Amino acid sequence: MTPDQIVIAAAISSWQQVITRVGALCLSLNEEQLLVEVAPGKNRILYLWGHLTAIHDAMFNVLRLEERLHPELDAIFIAQPDQSMPLPTSAEIAKCWEAIHTALLSKFTTLGPHEWLERHGNVSAEEFEQNSTRNRLAVLLHRTNHASCHCGQMMLATFKTP
Amino acid sequence: MTPDQIVIAAAISSWQQVITRVGALCLSLNEEQLLVEVAPGKNRILYLWGHLTAIHDAMFNVLRLEERLHPELDAIFIAQPDQSMPLPTSAEIAKCWEAIHTALLSKFTTLGPHEWLERHGNVSAEEFEQNSTRNRLAVLLHRTNHASCHCGQMMLATFKTP
Repeated sequence: MTPDQIVIAAAISSWQQVITRVGALCLSLNEEQLLVEVAPGKNRILYLWGHLTAIHDAMFNVLRLEERLHPELDAIFIAQPDQSMPLPTSAEIAKCWEAIHTALLSKFTTLGPHEWLERHGNVSAEEFEQNSTRNRLAVLLHRTNHASCHCGQMMLATFKTP
Repeated sequence: MTPDQIVIAAAISSWQQVITRVGALCLSLNEEQLLVEVAPGKNRILYLWGHLTAIHDAMFNVLRLEERLHPELDAIFIAQPDQSMPLPTSAEIAKCWEAIHTALLSKFTTLGPHEWLERHGNVSAEEFEQNSTRNRLAVLLHRTNHASCHCGQMMLATFKTP
């Protein structure tokens, strides 16, 4: 591998570590445990799991890869806070989680270093010309941090479960 | 910048975003707020701040950069869990936090892409020959995720403060 390929592989590996941790954590909890709030009156673990699923599904668009798989998740997990509408079952979220992350990883490994440094989908070609840091890789790193942040919250909440 | 320089810059920028967020959060809290537990019976925000400070200070060694600045932090924030000994004041932790991260960032920006892909300090040259993913960059990405994880916990705890 060339140096830039190794660097990209490290970023994908870092993403994959967090995704694996969140998936393993959520799949290890029963329905009751998934409904524990991470802090009083705050998001439940199940909501955060769906929230990460929706945000990551939207990466298909933000990374300009292909059509996303589950746009219907946004209405529940992005547009609305927790406790405002009924959530899908954990089995439904697990199925979306698995499908989305398998498809994302498969796409990630086909992009070359130069493609990772191309503009992301929320920035115009003109804006990108002014600021080349707004590239696909920056999105990957940012989403990895975002998932780590919520993973830390989920881990706390699991201390409270029976 | 060459592609591999842009990629490294993105990783450093991602690190710096998290460090800035943690620093701003902790500096915005008073002494009483810093002593709130992130979950019942779990770490207090002040402990987590010191924990991240100690872990990041140790990066001088793990990244084979130079002597670390505050090895004395390990006894309090790594070897022992919270509530087992008196903590330094927030002013002391803030001073260490600032000094360590200023020095780290200054070092980070002098390393070239090839240096980021050299082995980290917890792996021998022989082991690294077998597995080149155990490089400095992997440490940076891992520590960024670790800090994001605790940052998410700290953010939750601040909801509980007066």
